[in-house]
Amino acid sequence: MKTTDLPTATAPAKVLETALYAEDLGAATDFYQGLLGLEAFQTVPGRHVFFRIGDAVLLVFNPDATSEPSRNARIPVPAHGARGSGHVCFAMPRPQIADMRARLIAAGVAVDAEFDWPNGAHSLYVRDPAGNSVEFAEPWLWE
Amino acid sequence: MKTTDLPTATAPAKVLETALYAEDLGAATDFYQGLLGLEAFQTVPGRHVFFRIGDAVLLVFNPDATSEPSRNARIPVPAHGARGSGHVCFAMPRPQIADMRARLIAAGVAVDAEFDWPNGAHSLYVRDPAGNSVEFAEPWLWE
Repeated sequence: MKTTDLPTATAPAKVLETALYAEDLGAATDFYQGLLGLEAFQTVPGRHVFFRIGDAVLLVFNPDATSEPSRNARIPVPAHGARGSGHVCFAMPRPQIADMRARLIAAGVAVDAEFDWPNGAHSLYVRDPAGNSVEFAEPWLWE
Repeated sequence: MKTTDLPTATAPAKVLETALYAEDLGAATDFYQGLLGLEAFQTVPGRHVFFRIGDAVLLVFNPDATSEPSRNARIPVPAHGARGSGHVCFAMPRPQIADMRARLIAAGVAVDAEFDWPNGAHSLYVRDPAGNSVEFAEPWLWE
């Protein structure tokens, strides 16, 4: 069937949840809440910690837990769970990226890379404790 | 060092990039662009395809390619690349979720789960061709 023959639907216009994976959720909380300043608003020990970011959420899951099927018949959340280094990028004005770099370096977090893209937008990359590649970039990078 | 002794920095307020991984980028494009309706605005064959969603982007990477270090000294993007099932959730009003369900089912995509959360917000889950868990949820799920 051609896509033009399919029922029409409105394209998604917003990401509500961005997910990363980490086995050590305490270390993830220390990083995303203690260093980055995101509010950890829901924690299920051993399974996940969720962080509020604007009107969206950053979900950090322990793949050992979420790769098991849900046992709650009323909330049958499908299994998922990735291994290896994921990626997220936060939008941030350049002066705030500089402040964040200073804070992270003072906390002993190494800078993984830092450069200007061909269009001039600035990016700073670090690793979270699980090894995910965390980027801070000027929001006009993709304009 | 206590976090209160660290230089202060403004917390991130917005996710600019959400990443998923897929080895078959053509199949990912058929799904995210052809079925979901997201614009694939940048494709590097074998490495990635990027989709625009509002003022943010959904990045789909082939982990075989991105787990290799960058060879461009001016754009030294750090290596990353996860395996297994990741997760993303798109915010969508309930009537639009119903339209998307009809379109996906007509295209042969199976519904993985569909239910109302305890607060009444609705979620629909499917799998992308790489097995990532793709959710459509009412945006007030986390309010």
